[in-house]
Amino acid sequence: MIGRLVVVGAGLIGGSFALALKAAGAVKTVAGLGRSAEAMARARELGIVDEICDTPQQALRGADLVLLAAPVGQTGPILDSLLPYLEPQTVITDAGSTKCDVVAAARQALGPRVRQFVPGHPIAGSESNGPDAAMAGLYRGKKTVLTPLPENTPADVERVAAAWRLCGSLIHTLSPEDHDRVFAAVSHLPHLLAYALVDDIAAKPHADLLFQYAASGFRDFTRIAGSSPEMWRDISLANREALLTELDAYLAQLTTLRHKLAAADGRGLELVYANAQRARQAWIEAIEAGSPPQQHRDTE
Amino acid sequence: MIGRLVVVGAGLIGGSFALALKAAGAVKTVAGLGRSAEAMARARELGIVDEICDTPQQALRGADLVLLAAPVGQTGPILDSLLPYLEPQTVITDAGSTKCDVVAAARQALGPRVRQFVPGHPIAGSESNGPDAAMAGLYRGKKTVLTPLPENTPADVERVAAAWRLCGSLIHTLSPEDHDRVFAAVSHLPHLLAYALVDDIAAKPHADLLFQYAASGFRDFTRIAGSSPEMWRDISLANREALLTELDAYLAQLTTLRHKLAAADGRGLELVYANAQRARQAWIEAIEAGSPPQQHRDTE
Repeated sequence: MIGRLVVVGAGLIGGSFALALKAAGAVKTVAGLGRSAEAMARARELGIVDEICDTPQQALRGADLVLLAAPVGQTGPILDSLLPYLEPQTVITDAGSTKCDVVAAARQALGPRVRQFVPGHPIAGSESNGPDAAMAGLYRGKKTVLTPLPENTPADVERVAAAWRLCGSLIHTLSPEDHDRVFAAVSHLPHLLAYALVDDIAAKPHADLLFQYAASGFRDFTRIAGSSPEMWRDISLANREALLTELDAYLAQLTTLRHKLAAADGRGLELVYANAQRARQAWIEAIEAGSPPQQHRDTE
Repeated sequence: MIGRLVVVGAGLIGGSFALALKAAGAVKTVAGLGRSAEAMARARELGIVDEICDTPQQALRGADLVLLAAPVGQTGPILDSLLPYLEPQTVITDAGSTKCDVVAAARQALGPRVRQFVPGHPIAGSESNGPDAAMAGLYRGKKTVLTPLPENTPADVERVAAAWRLCGSLIHTLSPEDHDRVFAAVSHLPHLLAYALVDDIAAKPHADLLFQYAASGFRDFTRIAGSSPEMWRDISLANREALLTELDAYLAQLTTLRHKLAAADGRGLELVYANAQRARQAWIEAIEAGSPPQQHRDTE
């Protein structure tokens, strides 16, 4: 049982964590701390938080667990503000989509108290934001990746893992570096590509005509371009090196494909398309064989 | 009432057309003609076709309407094979995703009889293929673009339009050139980009690890990479010029975005992301305001 949970940010990610733990009967009090008084008031209306805190001091008094659920670029300043009031029993975790930068910011902000910070990343989300998008089932059947630090005690890591398990999530462990390389390829790059395509089309003089004929293939391809620009700006910057590596590999791949297309190399194009189709099919079959059906549409 | 409908290809597209017209009580007999005896036998089992034809001669006898529903690269050879048996009352249409090449192939194959060919493109589909994927409701609420020829009689164009309307489809008219430019941007390019991403990831030494953490943002982004490689090879080649133009514009856009990322230009990245998010949101709102809810997942 978590006596006092603090969510820093009570939107989709923080709000769903609170709702899931409440639904599991695993938390007594949820305190909310955030930039937007309006969002916090809404989170209280929705039963996500029980108490709205105006200051870190108020929020952290007697806290067992703190979840940072704000854009990753704010990790350092938020931890700076929490440190003076951080009690010895409190464990802090986060839900950031990048981990190397979060760990670096945590080390810088917390110093030796970084042992109380267990970095994490639930692989779930939605292109919708804010408290109204939060739901108790968001993490059910989804992976949560923890990237524990050498300084963390096994007991603190387990407290964070247990909380995510109570949300229905499956715990995986990676190093921060591996985490960031993996998500640069399968999440951050696709977001950048989708944003680029929609911006490219929207900037054309005949954009209205184009959008009129865009159908659901386009809708699904670009769904992740509906995600929060601020959040994805922070992720792009935070994971810049790995994202550049993936982007360059993709640009090289696209350039090769462009040559095949320009040369009317049907066989070459079909090989790439067929390889992609096969790989995706194998992936889908592995998901269907190994995991419960996915009920929510995520953007990690 | 269509006395005799011939579907050349009784998979997702041709099969759904036949099923929709049958459901509307608008067709007496559906004859199937196709490369794969197995698929045709399955189409008869499923009640899609009433009669399997071994030859164009057999298929075309007494035909009112013929739908070509095969990869666009086969349009010319199929029309060559139909011409000797084409009766004066028969109207041929097609469901190809490109139109300039289809029109060129039709002119070359049919000569003056091209007046009996009304080109079309239903903006609906699925990443699933074959007769088992066919469904009567596939075209409900979806656009069908006709690109009529100067040689077509208004009555023949209307016969094709009426058949699609009976499938629940909304008729739009474009020139073949406008059609191909529009779909290069909103359909053909996204397919190529999705195939390229999956192939790129599948070729990496740690592909298994990457796929393990790919979530539903990736799944939706790459859904169209589950489409038929042969079909999309043909579409890519058929609309090569327009697709190259769109691909080059996109490569330029990506290169600009790469510079912003390399320069850690957070403001520049956020502007692109925010513009894309806004444009997509406006598009989604326009769809929701103006169209019936979409029930199927299309790849056009």
